[in-house]
Amino acid sequence: MSIPILVAIEGGGTKFICAVGNQTGEILAKNHIPTTTPSETLGRVIAFLQEQERELGQFRAIGIACFGPLDPQPASPTYGKILPTPKPGWTNADIVGKIQAAFDIPITFDTDVNGAALGEWRWGAARELDTFIYLTIGTGIGGGGLINNQLMHGLIHPEMGHIRIPHDFEADPFEGICPFHKDCFEGLASGPAIQARWGQPAETLSPDHPAWKLEAHYIALALANYICTLSPQRIILGGGVSKQTHIFPQIHNEVQSILNKYIQSPQILAHIQDYIVPAGLGEQAGVLGALALAQQAFNVKL
Amino acid sequence: MSIPILVAIEGGGTKFICAVGNQTGEILAKNHIPTTTPSETLGRVIAFLQEQERELGQFRAIGIACFGPLDPQPASPTYGKILPTPKPGWTNADIVGKIQAAFDIPITFDTDVNGAALGEWRWGAARELDTFIYLTIGTGIGGGGLINNQLMHGLIHPEMGHIRIPHDFEADPFEGICPFHKDCFEGLASGPAIQARWGQPAETLSPDHPAWKLEAHYIALALANYICTLSPQRIILGGGVSKQTHIFPQIHNEVQSILNKYIQSPQILAHIQDYIVPAGLGEQAGVLGALALAQQAFNVKL
Repeated sequence: MSIPILVAIEGGGTKFICAVGNQTGEILAKNHIPTTTPSETLGRVIAFLQEQERELGQFRAIGIACFGPLDPQPASPTYGKILPTPKPGWTNADIVGKIQAAFDIPITFDTDVNGAALGEWRWGAARELDTFIYLTIGTGIGGGGLINNQLMHGLIHPEMGHIRIPHDFEADPFEGICPFHKDCFEGLASGPAIQARWGQPAETLSPDHPAWKLEAHYIALALANYICTLSPQRIILGGGVSKQTHIFPQIHNEVQSILNKYIQSPQILAHIQDYIVPAGLGEQAGVLGALALAQQAFNVKL
Repeated sequence: MSIPILVAIEGGGTKFICAVGNQTGEILAKNHIPTTTPSETLGRVIAFLQEQERELGQFRAIGIACFGPLDPQPASPTYGKILPTPKPGWTNADIVGKIQAAFDIPITFDTDVNGAALGEWRWGAARELDTFIYLTIGTGIGGGGLINNQLMHGLIHPEMGHIRIPHDFEADPFEGICPFHKDCFEGLASGPAIQARWGQPAETLSPDHPAWKLEAHYIALALANYICTLSPQRIILGGGVSKQTHIFPQIHNEVQSILNKYIQSPQILAHIQDYIVPAGLGEQAGVLGALALAQQAFNVKL
């Protein structure tokens, strides 16, 4: 029997990446489609995939790792849809419904960060773990993960970027840019927050710019909170900010300093450089995450 | 076949409560033993239980819900022990080892809050849920819970009381009493923190004392963080502070205000009084939690 062909759809705010691959993580074909309206974008996604299926053979399952908020719970009446979002035109967009109408095969639908977490678990930096989180810090900040080997859902899904952290207005008078919460973690530490505070894009700031000390401080406060709340076995950082490898040692030191030896684990006390790590799959985390979701859909069907 | 007899041990910082019961939640015998040294306390626990076993018949499983930090992971070399703690004499106390030497039956060992969460899941305020947290606010602040129907562990276990939250020193100049973190959540909002800030025990403060508005504010900040991090389907509050029923409406309003309609769930937007609730088992949460752990040990053995 030939290796089952799986479909990975990474739905992002600016583009959808569609890929065809298999359970080894191999990508056979890939395409980028701009995120415009749901019907145009999904129409082009479907057209691309139908063309690939004619060429490569029948698909067996689809994984969709999408921007949120979204409803990932199959038993829910709004399953498969985008929930109310400031993104024009996308509130209530029926992602799974549209894709399922074109392909009558199993689909798994989850957040981009849960997808990335599953990809890291299968092929990346979380292979031997049962409880860990994946956090992306870029245009926005979001987190997902596995707890006891299962993806995090609950009421809806985590919104880790929106926790409140201490904000010393004397040290940092910037008021924050989150439209809902102003100075939540995302409002203080996302890429656009860095740009608004310092007047230039984060990626143009040199490694010795004071922006990075402050950024490492906010990231460390948030990670310490996740550690106390969830007790993850590892924290994986993805997104644009995680490419700034020079801030990892600062984050490590600050997390240790904030926790102040309260949590007596060798991973935190002695091996923190292996505890808070960059994404193992790098740029591929999103699409391989969607592929891992497709693999999960395929396994459930068996 | 007769109903299996189960043992519940609730290990607290001031007393150990030992009970004999069964899977319906019925308690047949109970005793309070002061927490002194590990060998004296556990010796008296064992003596009481051996006496009860002669009277009531053979025990089938034991659940131990204990103060922490502790090691709840059976595969770990320090499983069953108390981890480094400021509590004199208890660091490395081998709780499971001592009890297992006296009773050769299955044992489940977990934190007091994970025990309480499991009890609430079986008999209390979390019966229909798969993902929720139980938070105790009293002498200390601690949290546990179930995620996808499994108790939270991970690296060690959650230490939810030690998250950092915004602290406005102008509104509240009190610097916090946590010996590790000063103004973490526990340092600002535990019973001893309330007493240190206002100069009198929390339970003697009248409902219109400004202490409660501040307390509700800190609790709401912490709960909003747990909601963003974990997406629980419900939050159950136990411990001494949760007996102050007048603060629940303040907590509800503040959580809604902090989240600011970002999480579009009817449970938060419209039914928050059923979302953040007092412990269903009240004073019995601890011992019934240990009994639920015993039931789990018994089931695993089957």
